[in-house]
Amino acid sequence: MIDRPAYAIALSLVLVLLAAVPLEHASARSDSLPSWNDSATKAAIVEFVARVTKDGGPDYVPPAERIAVFDNDGTLWSEQPMYFQLAFAIDRIATLAKDHPEWREKQPFKGVLEGDLKAVAASGEHGLLEIVAATHAGISTEEFAGIVDSWLTSAQHPKLKRPYTALVYQPMLELLSYLRANGFKTFIVSGGGVEFMRRFAENVYGIPPEQVIGSSGVVKFDIGADGEPRLVKDAKIEFIDDGAGKPVGINRFIGRRPIFAFGNSDGDLQMLQYTAAGRGARFMGLVHHTDSDREWAYDRASHIGKLDKALDEAKSKGWAVVDMKTDWSVVFP
Amino acid sequence: MIDRPAYAIALSLVLVLLAAVPLEHASARSDSLPSWNDSATKAAIVEFVARVTKDGGPDYVPPAERIAVFDNDGTLWSEQPMYFQLAFAIDRIATLAKDHPEWREKQPFKGVLEGDLKAVAASGEHGLLEIVAATHAGISTEEFAGIVDSWLTSAQHPKLKRPYTALVYQPMLELLSYLRANGFKTFIVSGGGVEFMRRFAENVYGIPPEQVIGSSGVVKFDIGADGEPRLVKDAKIEFIDDGAGKPVGINRFIGRRPIFAFGNSDGDLQMLQYTAAGRGARFMGLVHHTDSDREWAYDRASHIGKLDKALDEAKSKGWAVVDMKTDWSVVFP
Repeated sequence: MIDRPAYAIALSLVLVLLAAVPLEHASARSDSLPSWNDSATKAAIVEFVARVTKDGGPDYVPPAERIAVFDNDGTLWSEQPMYFQLAFAIDRIATLAKDHPEWREKQPFKGVLEGDLKAVAASGEHGLLEIVAATHAGISTEEFAGIVDSWLTSAQHPKLKRPYTALVYQPMLELLSYLRANGFKTFIVSGGGVEFMRRFAENVYGIPPEQVIGSSGVVKFDIGADGEPRLVKDAKIEFIDDGAGKPVGINRFIGRRPIFAFGNSDGDLQMLQYTAAGRGARFMGLVHHTDSDREWAYDRASHIGKLDKALDEAKSKGWAVVDMKTDWSVVFP
Repeated sequence: MIDRPAYAIALSLVLVLLAAVPLEHASARSDSLPSWNDSATKAAIVEFVARVTKDGGPDYVPPAERIAVFDNDGTLWSEQPMYFQLAFAIDRIATLAKDHPEWREKQPFKGVLEGDLKAVAASGEHGLLEIVAATHAGISTEEFAGIVDSWLTSAQHPKLKRPYTALVYQPMLELLSYLRANGFKTFIVSGGGVEFMRRFAENVYGIPPEQVIGSSGVVKFDIGADGEPRLVKDAKIEFIDDGAGKPVGINRFIGRRPIFAFGNSDGDLQMLQYTAAGRGARFMGLVHHTDSDREWAYDRASHIGKLDKALDEAKSKGWAVVDMKTDWSVVFP
């Protein structure tokens, strides 16, 4: 039995403790982004989050509608000198080549095996689809997952000599956590392959598979020779989650318009436009790669992650643009 | 200032309160399904949930992997005498007919307007696609959402004289809540149109739009005449989330194999097979419509919600089969 005065004291303390939670939370806000230097971008993020989470405020957004979408390549992790998924495909071709002696004389495989990326590029879209078919198809979704897992733990970036999953941006990891701590649901919306990204998104970004939206190939259900149902990856492309495909993918998978979107290239422009066009407070951001010492510097003229039209639109519309060199005190974890 | 003895008492009480939470939770378990009569089905559900949530137990499943999928038509709400989305389309055609005098002489519209469903059926797949095009396409996703919302608040079921959203199954609402209270993430995986279901799934089932998987039409992004980006619904079918499409949809949208699946017809068989074939503890269930007094009774010979092969497989494999008449004390809320 608990006597009444003690109960009253205990209850008061519980109320004090509960009341303290939002205060602690608020004071922690400005420290939740330690790898972001004090800048207009950081201030815009913190100010936006404060506005949409202020209960009773004019811009308040209920938690269920706090949808935040992030591009992956060049926004959450690096993408130079080539998309990391292409590096995976190239490594996979090298592994499979022992069973395919004919590849030594056949493009685009010959180019891949000889490191002649110009020849690969010359094989065009047809060549790219042949690479996808050889490396991403004809196996079950579970076999593919195992192959990706094994590559992610063994492969190293050729220049930076680190596992690819270590080439994620520390400031963006902090931003993802900060948004989630403020009731946002975070999604990836990327041109990358969905079954590839899902293998590391949960461990690395804290984003579960069901919140990863990406490009995909056709998958077919059948009953295998062992009588077990399985899903087999086909070589046919089903959906390209890039450019105008991004708002389409957001509608298809999320069914709500985001209030927060971050990208880094022209392939993200329509996602940012779609986010911007909703009612109420919104945040649109771009990562601008300006740091050739710690990462890479590229924009309007780059073949990978070209940032041209979206940079102009961001400037004209007042969207946030991260200057990687000056805005981030740390790039990688 | 709080003095130390009072603080100690308060702290003890907080600990007592915290410790009581799991106990209350556990004791509440058997009462979380009040509309389920005591039966083998109810016992199997409760036993399964206890097994996979028992920390340190041999069948423990971490919360992130507690994926539960539910068919919608006939599993979460009624589907007789026709799928409710078809009733929506028919009502919509009646509304639009004033601007389409030619429909009075043209099938399948003539049949719809005259209530001659045999003529509609005779128009085949082409006729059905014409109905979809007239009622589900050529407008923005947001306009469509408004039309569905308006129909849901005004339309009544012809026989049961209640709004369609009142024809959901109370025992299944309890099951959804019970699973969520035990750390499951609940998804709809239905042959119904995703943009239709998303308009009521959150309010009625507590399932947010991003956890609704369904059939879909092509959607296109463009910039409207007013300069605003928008998504426009096209008449072309993009994905049929039925039969073998269900495991494909689960893989595409969730990216994890469910451990719990509930359906009611042969269109759910592959989803149940796919769920059953995973490793570890799994639960597969079917709603069998056996109650012609309170709802409807139909199975092997029904055109809507045909339950034949899946019923045989459930029996041979020991999946749970709800006998609506005897297992549910209440059908509708």
